[in-house]
Amino acid sequence: MKNTFGSNIQYTLFGESHGEAIGIVIDGLPAGIALDLDLMERQMEKRKAKGKISTQRKEADQVKIISGYFNGHTSGTPLTILIENTNVRSQDYARTQMLLRPSHADYSAHVKYRGFEDYRGGGHFSGRLTAPIVAAGSIAMQILQQLGVQIATHIEKLHDLEDVRFGQTIEEVETQIAYLQDRSFPTLDETCGKAMIEKIEACAKQKDSVGGILESAAIHVPAGLGEPFFDSIESILAHLLFSIPAVKGVSFGSGFDFANLYGSEANDAFALKEGKIVTKSNHNGGINGGITNGMPIHLHTVIKATPSIYQEQDSVDLQSGKEAKLTIKGRHDPAILHRAAVVVDSMIAIGLLEALCQQEAGLALIKQMSSNERGMIV
Amino acid sequence: MKNTFGSNIQYTLFGESHGEAIGIVIDGLPAGIALDLDLMERQMEKRKAKGKISTQRKEADQVKIISGYFNGHTSGTPLTILIENTNVRSQDYARTQMLLRPSHADYSAHVKYRGFEDYRGGGHFSGRLTAPIVAAGSIAMQILQQLGVQIATHIEKLHDLEDVRFGQTIEEVETQIAYLQDRSFPTLDETCGKAMIEKIEACAKQKDSVGGILESAAIHVPAGLGEPFFDSIESILAHLLFSIPAVKGVSFGSGFDFANLYGSEANDAFALKEGKIVTKSNHNGGINGGITNGMPIHLHTVIKATPSIYQEQDSVDLQSGKEAKLTIKGRHDPAILHRAAVVVDSMIAIGLLEALCQQEAGLALIKQMSSNERGMIV
Amino acid sequence: MKNTFGSNIQYTLFGESHGEAIGIVIDGLPAGIALDLDLMERQMEKRKAKGKISTQRKEADQVKIISGYFNGHTSGTPLTILIENTNVRSQDYARTQMLLRPSHADYSAHVKYRGFEDYRGGGHFSGRLTAPIVAAGSIAMQILQQLGVQIATHIEKLHDLEDVRFGQTIEEVETQIAYLQDRSFPTLDETCGKAMIEKIEACAKQKDSVGGILESAAIHVPAGLGEPFFDSIESILAHLLFSIPAVKGVSFGSGFDFANLYGSEANDAFALKEGKIVTKSNHNGGINGGITNGMPIHLHTVIKATPSIYQEQDSVDLQSGKEAKLTIKGRHDPAILHRAAVVVDSMIAIGLLEALCQQEAGLALIKQMSSNERGMIV
Amino acid sequence: MKNTFGSNIQYTLFGESHGEAIGIVIDGLPAGIALDLDLMERQMEKRKAKGKISTQRKEADQVKIISGYFNGHTSGTPLTILIENTNVRSQDYARTQMLLRPSHADYSAHVKYRGFEDYRGGGHFSGRLTAPIVAAGSIAMQILQQLGVQIATHIEKLHDLEDVRFGQTIEEVETQIAYLQDRSFPTLDETCGKAMIEKIEACAKQKDSVGGILESAAIHVPAGLGEPFFDSIESILAHLLFSIPAVKGVSFGSGFDFANLYGSEANDAFALKEGKIVTKSNHNGGINGGITNGMPIHLHTVIKATPSIYQEQDSVDLQSGKEAKLTIKGRHDPAILHRAAVVVDSMIAIGLLEALCQQEAGLALIKQMSSNERGMIV
Repeated sequence: MKNTFGSNIQYTLFGESHGEAIGIVIDGLPAGIALDLDLMERQMEKRKAKGKISTQRKEADQVKIISGYFNGHTSGTPLTILIENTNVRSQDYARTQMLLRPSHADYSAHVKYRGFEDYRGGGHFSGRLTAPIVAAGSIAMQILQQLGVQIATHIEKLHDLEDVRFGQTIEEVETQIAYLQDRSFPTLDETCGKAMIEKIEACAKQKDSVGGILESAAIHVPAGLGEPFFDSIESILAHLLFSIPAVKGVSFGSGFDFANLYGSEANDAFALKEGKIVTKSNHNGGINGGITNGMPIHLHTVIKATPSIYQEQDSVDLQSGKEAKLTIKGRHDPAILHRAAVVVDSMIAIGLLEALCQQEAGLALIKQMSSNERGMIV
Repeated sequence: MKNTFGSNIQYTLFGESHGEAIGIVIDGLPAGIALDLDLMERQMEKRKAKGKISTQRKEADQVKIISGYFNGHTSGTPLTILIENTNVRSQDYARTQMLLRPSHADYSAHVKYRGFEDYRGGGHFSGRLTAPIVAAGSIAMQILQQLGVQIATHIEKLHDLEDVRFGQTIEEVETQIAYLQDRSFPTLDETCGKAMIEKIEACAKQKDSVGGILESAAIHVPAGLGEPFFDSIESILAHLLFSIPAVKGVSFGSGFDFANLYGSEANDAFALKEGKIVTKSNHNGGINGGITNGMPIHLHTVIKATPSIYQEQDSVDLQSGKEAKLTIKGRHDPAILHRAAVVVDSMIAIGLLEALCQQEAGLALIKQMSSNERGMIV
Repeated sequence: MKNTFGSNIQYTLFGESHGEAIGIVIDGLPAGIALDLDLMERQMEKRKAKGKISTQRKEADQVKIISGYFNGHTSGTPLTILIENTNVRSQDYARTQMLLRPSHADYSAHVKYRGFEDYRGGGHFSGRLTAPIVAAGSIAMQILQQLGVQIATHIEKLHDLEDVRFGQTIEEVETQIAYLQDRSFPTLDETCGKAMIEKIEACAKQKDSVGGILESAAIHVPAGLGEPFFDSIESILAHLLFSIPAVKGVSFGSGFDFANLYGSEANDAFALKEGKIVTKSNHNGGINGGITNGMPIHLHTVIKATPSIYQEQDSVDLQSGKEAKLTIKGRHDPAILHRAAVVVDSMIAIGLLEALCQQEAGLALIKQMSSNERGMIV
Repeated sequence: MKNTFGSNIQYTLFGESHGEAIGIVIDGLPAGIALDLDLMERQMEKRKAKGKISTQRKEADQVKIISGYFNGHTSGTPLTILIENTNVRSQDYARTQMLLRPSHADYSAHVKYRGFEDYRGGGHFSGRLTAPIVAAGSIAMQILQQLGVQIATHIEKLHDLEDVRFGQTIEEVETQIAYLQDRSFPTLDETCGKAMIEKIEACAKQKDSVGGILESAAIHVPAGLGEPFFDSIESILAHLLFSIPAVKGVSFGSGFDFANLYGSEANDAFALKEGKIVTKSNHNGGINGGITNGMPIHLHTVIKATPSIYQEQDSVDLQSGKEAKLTIKGRHDPAILHRAAVVVDSMIAIGLLEALCQQEAGLALIKQMSSNERGMIV
């Protein structure tokens, strides 16, 4: 499927960092949704480069909807979002095009596209491509919010600095998500957030960059979403998250800590709470057998340090075919965790909506047939 | 796509643990492949329950190919693999069907399928469904092996016991993969392997179970595989790996350790080695920008402890609608890491072959057109 | 997608005429459908070879459901249907395998699969593959029937013999569909049917075969199904119908007669009938702009004469590489129109259900959102 | 898949007739293709409204490539084509929006999109959407041409006027296709073409419109393309052709005339011609068993008369809910056959390229494996 994701609602992403425009086509949105353009703008705002902790390339990221939107509502046909590239300084890249930037896609893309790749600023591999994803994600988010679902992401860890974690119960997470709405820097602990900002600024001064872990939570997600094979909720979300540049690991619930737990410790016992079936602990992050169980979804995404650093690095010059020293120019982020948080939120929204549509289609059919003589036990 | 994975070669999985048969349809295999049935049998053997460290339900897992195979070769039409369920003792499950097993899919499946799920032995959620995946994976593996690709997985960590890790260079990994071929228990360090076996046996005695981490490596994978969006190699592999029951996290290269690394530490500098472009370190696990770069692919899969333990657990009885105590009967694995290793190998093979076909299709076209006037620089 | 069709409910077809079994995996059926196995058997019966007007190879076509079906209901996981091949006389084919049968797939399959094709009895190209399609189609049909949809097909034309045509209004078609239920030979006019049977028998005596046109109607199909691009209802149905062996043309409503009509003649004026919007004529066969409009769907499928005739034919011998004379052995149908009618019905059911699910998924979502403030005008 | 077609190369269509722009995203094009923009312009020119036989809405149809194209070559990432709508007079539609236009999608779209559809000028259902299809098709055409494939379409029949038909041999068709290249009006017989033009002009004067049949041929298509189920070449091409507005029937080779032929007449005997296997006749239009056989592909597409006529018609007013008279305003085509020919060519190119990629992917793999020990017999 390459640049298209989704079966019920399909997203087709296009564009290059230094091309004319980037954008996304969203197909399958039901007609009649009054788009929340304020939400879209707020989400786009979260992704924007700000202050000294981000790149100095500031893009307006003006979202234009050029199809599928009529009289303030979705029309049911493909909705196309276009974002023009305005603040382009390609000359910064001209000089380094033949010098492979370490841990960037320069070399792997060069082999893949046999020299025809658009190398300016990362081309189609650029983090800029996450802008249309955030715009599209805000539509998925709006739909989910109207169904009660809430999603948020904070920086769990930036190098050695660790934020407070999301709670285990829906109530705790609800409070935390509300708190995060107004944060300009996404941490649950403000002091920790300030320390992280200082760390990023210090990194920038060192001509270095820094990585970390994002923690996300989604609550009020209906139980029963996801498919046993091959589209478990974990599969769907990981598929999306691993296409965000710089993501190198994704885990759910207790994640890699499961390695240290015995079954007797790791199992989430069932219990009743106000007549509803819940689990006493939530090691599984709201997902059993690949299917949501109604508990908060918890997931972790590790983001590597931005590969664009200003220190001299060892490289190979494709033109001369020889080893060479590289010093990167251009405008780059010393850390992208704070900007990536809303991208992760967007991907989670896109993934959950896909699973929800899948489940609803079957339910709609069965309801029409009214042949459900046994019915649900729960 | 639910139970179907893949675009070039498609795998459709079906069956339930206690039904008549499980199986898989593989569509898109080129005609004329002389199947290596010995390799298939060896792979199936690795997955089988053996000794005291596995369940006492021993299945013959006799693979029958009922279509798409003619005169010892693939015929080009869908190849269907059938594995009958023989050693079925469903009565063990009759008693517990209404008591939700913690950390199993019982509850989430019950909500999803509204009471109509086949609850016997996990039904379609059962680990038994990985048997046809291993059979199918062995075909993908055979094709990749003929192209020079090698894949192997060992137990990196079982609770507090840690095995030696895969090396950073192709040469090191090649030796390690060769070593693993003859191991009945998949560790690189034999002593560590023995300790792990003892730990599993001890767990079994405690009516408990244990989890851990698998590390996989793939070498001689051509550079240039994967797509920037949304089908990065990481996305494809994670999608497949997260549909293996019990997998809760997947990471590539340095994985979650990236959180602790500055860009200056994490970047993999480029260098020349015998005229070939390589990276000096391999934090990125052979993948840059979602695309393979020719270095060894390294990935980690965390497997939670088997949820079926024999200790009494808190649960809810769907029939009475009340909380109740559950003691699981039946035959279960105290650990599945050693059996899961070949399942992970199979998924990796399926994923890499998919990405390879994707890339080859385009190349085949361009070669026919012979319009590649610029050509590759590398 | 090759042997898999459908996005909401997916059908994966496998098997060869003289292999061990043929079958189909149906994925995406909602859980809880009490399968109407009588309907399935009746549909299978309609497809069976009977009397002198069909092949003498009589197959039991015993349908076995080996997964996805539990306690008399669909379980929500892939439902697999298996039909064993029992009455196989492959030796009839051994002699002719290298002699290309005119208008069969022998040559094109040989090129496609480079000599590795299963040539026995048409292999995967055999009309036998329509047996699992009818079984699967009966499930789609059952669902549609419960929603009120009715579908039927009769022989519109067999050589120079022409049956009565389906009426233009829902009421007329309803009566005709009811009439067709009990027919052993699918014509609306019994006398015409008898003449057709005689013609087929005469053909058989002449060692020849005969073709014709099937006309199908579907009523009570909800308006609004289909997509403008690329999944118009016509696209979906034609896609399915053209994969039935021997189909060489598909048309809707007035079909190829549209060439003779001016716009003023061909347009279907809108009118009100008991408060409902209808069209006064139905040249468009219930489809406007690729979307159903609530009027009866009318479609025509031309079926070429069975290529297996017993007269000597010119051919090429692949073994010698020379021209040669071919006299076909084996057991073949002098006409397949009467057996193909239920296959066409099955494909229509599969196609309409797919479009219905597509539409329902969106509606279900929008209903949940209850944001449909404008609402439908009609 | 809705507005996306294709698996190897994917086309995602978007836009509305009176929106800001229409366009298409093409994903999966191999990198390094030097686009033939002249061919694209020539194809676009063929589709344009010209003279008195077409609508008076003249659109510049300026094609802008905004991504996936770098330094004169495809870059391997999604290629996006944008065509702005410039000559928009939506006020013509304001008045009729609530009056259903007969045989248009007004009513079916209204039900489908529940009143939220963009009704201006047909919206997403407009024939304007075929402009990006022609642009995309010209790229597919260019690739096929470089591989030797030639495709052309002429007006076989316009009401009672019938053109000369395509010949049965590759040589005859080759000459005819060459002849058609320079025609401003697509007929094989110039006199017949003039008569058709007069007929269209006469229709326009009568405020009426006229339909007809297009015949297409494709030669030098490699044998072996297409899949038995469900993606026969006929299925793929029909799927695409039936999404062109106004197409109501598609047939291959002798098409609906097969109904009048006995097997002994309809079968295409095999023979050798200069050492190559050919068929003596070509009733099957170059396709056996859904797979190309190397003979010319012949297909027929019936195009209904344009539903927009200037005569008063019976209709229903959605606003009042009452029957009403409708007189269509705006600028419309009295016939679209001459403009549709290049759209049909484009769809055929898209479909054949898809099938070719499918086949090449498998071949590329098997060649790499060099395990093809039996090899092709032919």
